[in-house]
Amino acid sequence: MVVRAAVAGASGYAGGELLRLLLTHPEVEIGALTGHSSAGQKLGALQPHLLPLADRVLRETTPEVLAGHDVVFLALPHGQSAAVAEQLGPEVLVIDMGADFRLKNPADWERFYGSAHAGTWPYGLPELPGGRAALEGSKRIAVPGCYPTAVSLALFPAYAAGLTEPEAVIVAASGTSGAGKAVKPHLLGSEVMGSMSPYGVGGGHRHTPEMIQNLSTAAGEPVSVSFTPTLAPMSRGILATCSAKAKPGVTAESVRAAYEKAFADEPFVHLLPEGQWPATASVYGSNAVQVQVAHDPAADRVIVVSAIDNLTKGTAGGALQSMNIALGLDETTGLSTIGVAP
Amino acid sequence: MVVRAAVAGASGYAGGELLRLLLTHPEVEIGALTGHSSAGQKLGALQPHLLPLADRVLRETTPEVLAGHDVVFLALPHGQSAAVAEQLGPEVLVIDMGADFRLKNPADWERFYGSAHAGTWPYGLPELPGGRAALEGSKRIAVPGCYPTAVSLALFPAYAAGLTEPEAVIVAASGTSGAGKAVKPHLLGSEVMGSMSPYGVGGGHRHTPEMIQNLSTAAGEPVSVSFTPTLAPMSRGILATCSAKAKPGVTAESVRAAYEKAFADEPFVHLLPEGQWPATASVYGSNAVQVQVAHDPAADRVIVVSAIDNLTKGTAGGALQSMNIALGLDETTGLSTIGVAP
Amino acid sequence: MVVRAAVAGASGYAGGELLRLLLTHPEVEIGALTGHSSAGQKLGALQPHLLPLADRVLRETTPEVLAGHDVVFLALPHGQSAAVAEQLGPEVLVIDMGADFRLKNPADWERFYGSAHAGTWPYGLPELPGGRAALEGSKRIAVPGCYPTAVSLALFPAYAAGLTEPEAVIVAASGTSGAGKAVKPHLLGSEVMGSMSPYGVGGGHRHTPEMIQNLSTAAGEPVSVSFTPTLAPMSRGILATCSAKAKPGVTAESVRAAYEKAFADEPFVHLLPEGQWPATASVYGSNAVQVQVAHDPAADRVIVVSAIDNLTKGTAGGALQSMNIALGLDETTGLSTIGVAP
Amino acid sequence: MVVRAAVAGASGYAGGELLRLLLTHPEVEIGALTGHSSAGQKLGALQPHLLPLADRVLRETTPEVLAGHDVVFLALPHGQSAAVAEQLGPEVLVIDMGADFRLKNPADWERFYGSAHAGTWPYGLPELPGGRAALEGSKRIAVPGCYPTAVSLALFPAYAAGLTEPEAVIVAASGTSGAGKAVKPHLLGSEVMGSMSPYGVGGGHRHTPEMIQNLSTAAGEPVSVSFTPTLAPMSRGILATCSAKAKPGVTAESVRAAYEKAFADEPFVHLLPEGQWPATASVYGSNAVQVQVAHDPAADRVIVVSAIDNLTKGTAGGALQSMNIALGLDETTGLSTIGVAP
Repeated sequence: MVVRAAVAGASGYAGGELLRLLLTHPEVEIGALTGHSSAGQKLGALQPHLLPLADRVLRETTPEVLAGHDVVFLALPHGQSAAVAEQLGPEVLVIDMGADFRLKNPADWERFYGSAHAGTWPYGLPELPGGRAALEGSKRIAVPGCYPTAVSLALFPAYAAGLTEPEAVIVAASGTSGAGKAVKPHLLGSEVMGSMSPYGVGGGHRHTPEMIQNLSTAAGEPVSVSFTPTLAPMSRGILATCSAKAKPGVTAESVRAAYEKAFADEPFVHLLPEGQWPATASVYGSNAVQVQVAHDPAADRVIVVSAIDNLTKGTAGGALQSMNIALGLDETTGLSTIGVAP
Repeated sequence: MVVRAAVAGASGYAGGELLRLLLTHPEVEIGALTGHSSAGQKLGALQPHLLPLADRVLRETTPEVLAGHDVVFLALPHGQSAAVAEQLGPEVLVIDMGADFRLKNPADWERFYGSAHAGTWPYGLPELPGGRAALEGSKRIAVPGCYPTAVSLALFPAYAAGLTEPEAVIVAASGTSGAGKAVKPHLLGSEVMGSMSPYGVGGGHRHTPEMIQNLSTAAGEPVSVSFTPTLAPMSRGILATCSAKAKPGVTAESVRAAYEKAFADEPFVHLLPEGQWPATASVYGSNAVQVQVAHDPAADRVIVVSAIDNLTKGTAGGALQSMNIALGLDETTGLSTIGVAP
Repeated sequence: MVVRAAVAGASGYAGGELLRLLLTHPEVEIGALTGHSSAGQKLGALQPHLLPLADRVLRETTPEVLAGHDVVFLALPHGQSAAVAEQLGPEVLVIDMGADFRLKNPADWERFYGSAHAGTWPYGLPELPGGRAALEGSKRIAVPGCYPTAVSLALFPAYAAGLTEPEAVIVAASGTSGAGKAVKPHLLGSEVMGSMSPYGVGGGHRHTPEMIQNLSTAAGEPVSVSFTPTLAPMSRGILATCSAKAKPGVTAESVRAAYEKAFADEPFVHLLPEGQWPATASVYGSNAVQVQVAHDPAADRVIVVSAIDNLTKGTAGGALQSMNIALGLDETTGLSTIGVAP
Repeated sequence: MVVRAAVAGASGYAGGELLRLLLTHPEVEIGALTGHSSAGQKLGALQPHLLPLADRVLRETTPEVLAGHDVVFLALPHGQSAAVAEQLGPEVLVIDMGADFRLKNPADWERFYGSAHAGTWPYGLPELPGGRAALEGSKRIAVPGCYPTAVSLALFPAYAAGLTEPEAVIVAASGTSGAGKAVKPHLLGSEVMGSMSPYGVGGGHRHTPEMIQNLSTAAGEPVSVSFTPTLAPMSRGILATCSAKAKPGVTAESVRAAYEKAFADEPFVHLLPEGQWPATASVYGSNAVQVQVAHDPAADRVIVVSAIDNLTKGTAGGALQSMNIALGLDETTGLSTIGVAP
């Protein structure tokens, strides 16, 4: 099979990571690359790490440029995907790496994004219960947010197995690439290096309703989420520390058993051996998810920590994994669980 | 007043930070500096940032060497302070920067440290209710742990004011200097840079009983603590994200009011203006504590984030602040709230 | 003495560092703080590490606002200092932290800055031969660039002592704060962390003529400089690796002797003990300069490495040191050689 | 073809990087993995980023364990490779990633390593003149040092084309992984982060004679090298800033032309477009070498800057590239020029 893929938004971090992966995907041929302010520039000036594509020139994001591809990836600012997607035929697989089509509840969208809801597409997190079925043959895919990927994979087995009370507390640390390539003062290297700081505290982060959506579905009841993201002095990686009160009778053994079962056949999600905890460095550049679990007997809480690369499994790798499923390819094609470390 | 101070354990990070501060303390004269494996070496080879002391030679940690000082700071491995302290007279102010005398409950000590409990000394966290009174005129001081400093200052006002349920969830990120100068593989720069990872998950960290002790005292009832420390790619700093379920009727306004009141007269603890969140870079090298609070209405939790420099307010600055109180000096002498940034 | 000081450009890194130092200078009272786009904002929002000044409001940079001070520090973009300085009376000490008045040769200025030369002020590097005399009683001071500070202090003794041929090769690594707070894509944390890269290669960096000026003066003949600056993944610090061909008969001993003599009475410049090399971490936040020398017998070159904090000795500390001299204060007032490490 | 490969020294950084690459090499089957202190442990505990090999157990480095492979990679401490290699038959391809067989001159070896010289093997830097021919069909390969890789590729075209005088000045910054996994105090994260420092200054670094060997061969006359390595606050990457006096008549154009010619057919070495300079982040995890050149007209020096990943092209990738050539495989098999960034 030759899958011809276009990438709209090839100058940003998500687009760059997608291209990095597409370059080694054996079934994909990289087609049009588009940008907006970067249209007309060579990719080598924008993504100097992608040497094989250095001479490719970015074009404007227009229907004409995006026409003639089997897959179109959209790595656009929030709110812009719907207009582009409409102009692509229903036979084209459109994979939105933005937030536009992730949420089911229009009220959630409107509250957190302040605009009209564009709709809901099949959700690209295959590891969730029923996740793969929703993607097979689909022509539209909403790629999950990076934090919801890390958090949902950490906690859904606990909720699906009825181990935890429906009030989750999550503190996650993210590398700065999660904030994208926008030049904002607080993202300057001078500000970031040597510093940890929180943001969006108190329920304000836009990824919160997406986590609630996923965990509530797994639990079969409404789950509340207290989510605090923090910015860490690193380029990539999310470490999500997630916990919830244990339900009566839950033990370290029952927790571990539930997670072993949940991830037994997962190609990308690895429950680490007992005693070993995830580190973001171990999944750097890979599509792997490292998970470890504990039961704190004194606080009687189940604690789950997951590590992902926010750009790979958290964005571009997750998109590719979903593409593989949608197209009937082996799910792991072009993806690996091999990190770049140290 | 001239206070003659000795530092036992001058080659480590805690000892080095203490010396950095003592060098600019107007009432202190730096006396004997001791070490064990480093005895006989010049300080300049061990602490190259302390140029004014570069030619001072470290001596063995013996009673003779430590004799004749007004204050002796102990920056020794856990379990070694009691033996040294016994040999110093009751008229000498002994300030233990280790854990030996922090805990009140011998069972806690034995469980977390695996040895016989040496006793309990007045606790060097002046900002806690009754904290200053316990230190005035004292000749023995136990300096709090770095995490308990960040966490206790973040949460005690909520518990003292009855705002929160007695189950706290804490995730804290620490710079690597918190682990000391011991050469362990996971502390190598190659492992640490670009990586976040948790440790001591599930209640295993030795600072947990100390937090419980402080928060339970503030609450007037037993508080449980779910504490997850993480190692962050930076040298210094602790960012503690703390939360607990709000008690009925608690609002963002009542939370803020309680914290404004708690910290109104504190020279080192600053409740930031609304909308501004702590960053460890802002307290780098300073004795300041930056705190911000929120009430998440959806999860109905009170969230408090604090930032400290683990070596300054979290260790050596806290020790000096307590010394000042014990000796009847102005509490802020030789300490500042000015960070080194960016 | 009470010196009333104004800071024009208080929102940037140079201005922030200057305020950090002024806060502990015993003779200085901090007066007006000004900015341009930041006028009207509280300093706490712009420099969150300067808690004692958090409530100070920035004002516009106008003659009225700057009037009534003994010293006015200008931390303005290149080319703006002359206009402001003209409006301040000749009795006011004006210290320009920008480049406007550093160069003696108008042609150099025009070539590297592309505008008309504003003039030449006494040069604020007291350690150079004749450096202090030029500053005593002066009412105008041009603060050296950060790279020229590190490089000139590293190499002038070799040239003054006639040890080296007049062709210097310099490669220096700087932390990102040297580039200021301007939000440019290549200064984003995501780009900077984990990366080293050069810039201004081949003689293009604006600090080159300033180095040539200093070293040629020391040598008494024209010195050529091959200067390559590199951007390092750290916030602060410059490590300058400087070398030149040894003149006949030069040995390791004669090099060391020349440097010992040159720095014997210097309060801030420290020739390290043999075998110990400078590290930027050791001078973090301090006004110290660490220097070490070697003679490579095979290549027959003298190699000198210096480390400074680009914001302290390289900018604001150097400015304050010069102010002290100009005002007849002890040169070290308010400055230290104590770094913040680790 | 199925190439069965063993890795002796699989627990270190070089061994880990080699395994990362071997895992995706289409012709290689990973055989025995050995260690010394780590024998008996699972690889997952030592190299947690290599999830597909997590359950592989390390064995002792013995002839029996290493028998039966087509290729044996040696990632052993200096001085240990000869003894192991002797016990492997002449039909086995042995690739030494240590220094033992790099130098041609026994006196150089003895001076820099202090032991008897083991011999000289074909040198694994195919890009050098005659480099490929030396490797084709060879059964013994000495992998170059990381610094010599970066420096030799940067400078050999200038020397081969007669553009530069035979006195090279090199300052290189390396990530900490270059120092290996040995736990030494100065390699602790707390020491490394935020700091730049030199080491081995004045000709003492063991990679110096290797550079001299390569450049002298290219020049056809003895080249002297002044080499100063510095430790940078990053895990991976080398940025080498290399320069030499231009010979008469050399211009920016003639320099560029020589480099364009030298690298025109090289799959891994890329002369960047004019105006773009190498960054180590761009070659992170890739086998690419980014090079840029300049002629400084004022100093009349040719300046060449190269960036490599010290573990990939500088060690394991270089080893694999040479293996491909020795075995008659396409040289680029299992290697890429795609970096992991940001």
